[in-house]
Amino acid sequence: MPLQPSSTVTLLISCPDRQGLVAAVTAFIAQHHGNILHLAQHVDQTQGVFFMRVEWELSSFDLPRDEITAAFAKVAQPLGMTWTIQYSDVRPRMAIFVSKQAHCLYELLSRWQAGEWQVDIPLIISNHRDLAGVAAQFGIRYMVFPMTPETKAAQEKEQIALLREHHIDLIVLARYMQIVSPDFVGAFSNRIINIHHSFLPAFIGDRPYHKAYERGVKMIGATSHYVTADLDAGPIIEQDIVRVDHRDTIDDLVRKGRDIEKLVLARAVRAHLLHQVLVYNNKTVVFN
Amino acid sequence: MPLQPSSTVTLLISCPDRQGLVAAVTAFIAQHHGNILHLAQHVDQTQGVFFMRVEWELSSFDLPRDEITAAFAKVAQPLGMTWTIQYSDVRPRMAIFVSKQAHCLYELLSRWQAGEWQVDIPLIISNHRDLAGVAAQFGIRYMVFPMTPETKAAQEKEQIALLREHHIDLIVLARYMQIVSPDFVGAFSNRIINIHHSFLPAFIGDRPYHKAYERGVKMIGATSHYVTADLDAGPIIEQDIVRVDHRDTIDDLVRKGRDIEKLVLARAVRAHLLHQVLVYNNKTVVFN
Amino acid sequence: MPLQPSSTVTLLISCPDRQGLVAAVTAFIAQHHGNILHLAQHVDQTQGVFFMRVEWELSSFDLPRDEITAAFAKVAQPLGMTWTIQYSDVRPRMAIFVSKQAHCLYELLSRWQAGEWQVDIPLIISNHRDLAGVAAQFGIRYMVFPMTPETKAAQEKEQIALLREHHIDLIVLARYMQIVSPDFVGAFSNRIINIHHSFLPAFIGDRPYHKAYERGVKMIGATSHYVTADLDAGPIIEQDIVRVDHRDTIDDLVRKGRDIEKLVLARAVRAHLLHQVLVYNNKTVVFN
Amino acid sequence: MPLQPSSTVTLLISCPDRQGLVAAVTAFIAQHHGNILHLAQHVDQTQGVFFMRVEWELSSFDLPRDEITAAFAKVAQPLGMTWTIQYSDVRPRMAIFVSKQAHCLYELLSRWQAGEWQVDIPLIISNHRDLAGVAAQFGIRYMVFPMTPETKAAQEKEQIALLREHHIDLIVLARYMQIVSPDFVGAFSNRIINIHHSFLPAFIGDRPYHKAYERGVKMIGATSHYVTADLDAGPIIEQDIVRVDHRDTIDDLVRKGRDIEKLVLARAVRAHLLHQVLVYNNKTVVFN
Repeated sequence: MPLQPSSTVTLLISCPDRQGLVAAVTAFIAQHHGNILHLAQHVDQTQGVFFMRVEWELSSFDLPRDEITAAFAKVAQPLGMTWTIQYSDVRPRMAIFVSKQAHCLYELLSRWQAGEWQVDIPLIISNHRDLAGVAAQFGIRYMVFPMTPETKAAQEKEQIALLREHHIDLIVLARYMQIVSPDFVGAFSNRIINIHHSFLPAFIGDRPYHKAYERGVKMIGATSHYVTADLDAGPIIEQDIVRVDHRDTIDDLVRKGRDIEKLVLARAVRAHLLHQVLVYNNKTVVFN
Repeated sequence: MPLQPSSTVTLLISCPDRQGLVAAVTAFIAQHHGNILHLAQHVDQTQGVFFMRVEWELSSFDLPRDEITAAFAKVAQPLGMTWTIQYSDVRPRMAIFVSKQAHCLYELLSRWQAGEWQVDIPLIISNHRDLAGVAAQFGIRYMVFPMTPETKAAQEKEQIALLREHHIDLIVLARYMQIVSPDFVGAFSNRIINIHHSFLPAFIGDRPYHKAYERGVKMIGATSHYVTADLDAGPIIEQDIVRVDHRDTIDDLVRKGRDIEKLVLARAVRAHLLHQVLVYNNKTVVFN
Repeated sequence: MPLQPSSTVTLLISCPDRQGLVAAVTAFIAQHHGNILHLAQHVDQTQGVFFMRVEWELSSFDLPRDEITAAFAKVAQPLGMTWTIQYSDVRPRMAIFVSKQAHCLYELLSRWQAGEWQVDIPLIISNHRDLAGVAAQFGIRYMVFPMTPETKAAQEKEQIALLREHHIDLIVLARYMQIVSPDFVGAFSNRIINIHHSFLPAFIGDRPYHKAYERGVKMIGATSHYVTADLDAGPIIEQDIVRVDHRDTIDDLVRKGRDIEKLVLARAVRAHLLHQVLVYNNKTVVFN
Repeated sequence: MPLQPSSTVTLLISCPDRQGLVAAVTAFIAQHHGNILHLAQHVDQTQGVFFMRVEWELSSFDLPRDEITAAFAKVAQPLGMTWTIQYSDVRPRMAIFVSKQAHCLYELLSRWQAGEWQVDIPLIISNHRDLAGVAAQFGIRYMVFPMTPETKAAQEKEQIALLREHHIDLIVLARYMQIVSPDFVGAFSNRIINIHHSFLPAFIGDRPYHKAYERGVKMIGATSHYVTADLDAGPIIEQDIVRVDHRDTIDDLVRKGRDIEKLVLARAVRAHLLHQVLVYNNKTVVFN
């Protein structure tokens, strides 16, 4: 495949902080005539950890793509770096999990179909039949895995196999009303994004809008986070809120909440797809 | 005292919902030639409770001020109404409690001094000497009540006596870093407004910015609420948030938080002073 | 058709302000045993105009539906009221106009398909073929009217005929990149809603994101308004903004702008469909 | 003066974009054992201009302070850089200009007095006597320069002399209701910050809240910008908005606007004081 002129390489780095890290990385890029498009770095002073995201154009870079990893390893190893390299012309593959509510699914699919995201979506998985029609509208395979306490373990095993078979890089839980098991989470660590319909850590668990209504809050929120074994406790990628008042019933909270749920989820998915997110210490660094 | 042309009367009502409530109240006002400036009503359908706020001009009203209460009682009693009447030309009296942080105090005092609020502020009370200078700048009496576990009960008793002696209608805890006792709360029910530096019910209790930092949230909040015997669990009047990201240290959260704390508190105090707030069921109806 | 238990009637009123207006309207409703669900009123003191929206349940109301208008006219006429009556079980009919961008169209159609709005959408009209596929996905007729300066007058005449034939109540310009003529506007006065991709009155006309980029603003906006003969100058229904910074290219502004365009448009359409909007003096009163 | 351990040096750079710029700057810092605290860079692709802000600790840096400029010049000159160097322990000197409204002045002074900003404020200048008392409260000299069309040129000349005599680095127009002349602007280029009470470029000039009310907008804004010879057309540093609706009178817009004016101005002043702002092409790059 001929290289597109606009193809870029993105390097994500974390390591113990020390002097000269930015200099070492940018010297490597400059030496091979890379033209930097975006560079951001962050130091967590309390933990002494350094983070960096740098994206440069491949067109002028004088290393062949299959030699970049080995070449950069020589820079990275002495400095104790953990790092990944991603190419903008390699489309990641995303699976979407849903239950009965359509708004987040529409949001993701309409962005995908309008060409807003460079991603393939080969699969939509659900525990219910309800949204098969939406998947059909967009021409995407829809698989139903009904869940009961008895079948859950076996169903998840099948799901994992299916996801691997389809080389899925990212799983998006788009209002999927099932708690995924630690085994499932372990199989896709930091690659499962959920949308929770509250301003976490407020209103963890089920029925957050009911709880928000009971508490009489003046704003409701939505939180997108990586899924971990602890319920609604994973690293937060993005949050937003919307104002409510005494006139809003629970149905109104649900309705207003949908609009921020779908936007917050879309922003988190975009950040992940553009390799802008680093996870450490159950928190995220989002270089956007 | 001659009536100012702009004086208004504000009626706040709550009662079991039934047909004809708005008609009954507005007929009373129309019959006495009152010119309605603001009218808002709300029905909590789940509880079957009716709320109303109506404000009209006194100038054209044909009942003398000292007869209004008795006259309206005849309307209200058969309908089971709980109600209050307030006059815009009666200035409420407010006491401010502070500890060491000045930003909320400056916010309240500068609005008061600029004439933004119709309120008297005869007293600032603190458990520390630190802000005596600020009170002096604005010419307000500053009283220090040091607090230890041993002296707290006695000190609060003195505070209550002092507040009563000064005919204080509203107490504002402007980053007052003491938990007030149930006895104190009971003495000023629904008349103590606090500012808590988190988006309640997230991060109840002390050090909310530290907890927010630990959790890695992408927004921090502030909540103003009436104080009840349960810590940070009283009826919420107003909330707001500000966006943060991975670059923000705890000091940054504290700094950014100050700006929303002071605005949220100011909005809550204003709503109370304008008689826009009704409390029921540990929630508020804010007619603003 | 049997009356649904949840059917409501909504009365929208404007008239010269005077004493007793709320009393007169609510007495009419109470006398016929109507149970008020929502009531809001507003007085523009500078113009001396009174506005009111009141919604009550039909189930307990003792007037037959076909007598309500005549009965209320007896109340309204002596008070000089302009008014409309709407029933919640009568579904309005909406046509959507688009050009090449899909995001607003997806937003409207996904809400409609998910049952969020009580509306029929018999027609999508465009000056381009591009979005025929989206219309087909949702099973809605898509009509193309190519526009040139020469054909515009004739094409609009045909559009008007088509819209009338389909009994269209509301026209939504969902990023329709054509200026509609005064004749077209006149045929659907206060029934054409547009979304403009700027914070009006900033950046009127074409290429607002380019202008925003040139000016170096730190926020971009979107405005939904009723269309009048003056370009981008009609009564504003809803606005919102999103933060941008120096890193955002024009493409980024376009991308970020899409998210607020579609939400602002959806909120404006919802307010119109729920009969919450009154227009006067080239401004709106939105009772939401 | 012994160096504080926390003292930092901040380098602000702009130059034509080319490969190796970040590498060159960070190599210089690393070579002298500087520990980078913050680094941000930006490339305006349309103009081919590179911007960078880098802040590092002085404590470990092995160049004496008085040699840094000369040493860095050797790096900067071949690359065609425009650059400035600032030290965090050098307090800038700020003058505030006001007219009759106090809210922005209180905001700035209370932050300064609470120690939030490292800045000296030797002077408050006004065209009216009204706020002399506020200045006195905070112990700052207050100078009145009445302005008439006839005296303006002479008065400004005196102001310039006074500002120079006091070695003023930054002038903040905190709701100063006078248009400063091109000569005055020229004397303090990119060092005069204004707050305009609208969302620029909407409602340029006087009475923006009246214009906003007339237009029926659903949000009002505030804009802080560097002053240039063109009215309200200088480089924008910060903007924000607040929601309004049909119930808000002009007085309400003024009241709500005050809260965002003072916060927007404070954020802009802070960014300037921390050397986070670069101006080019009548726009700003704000590295915050």
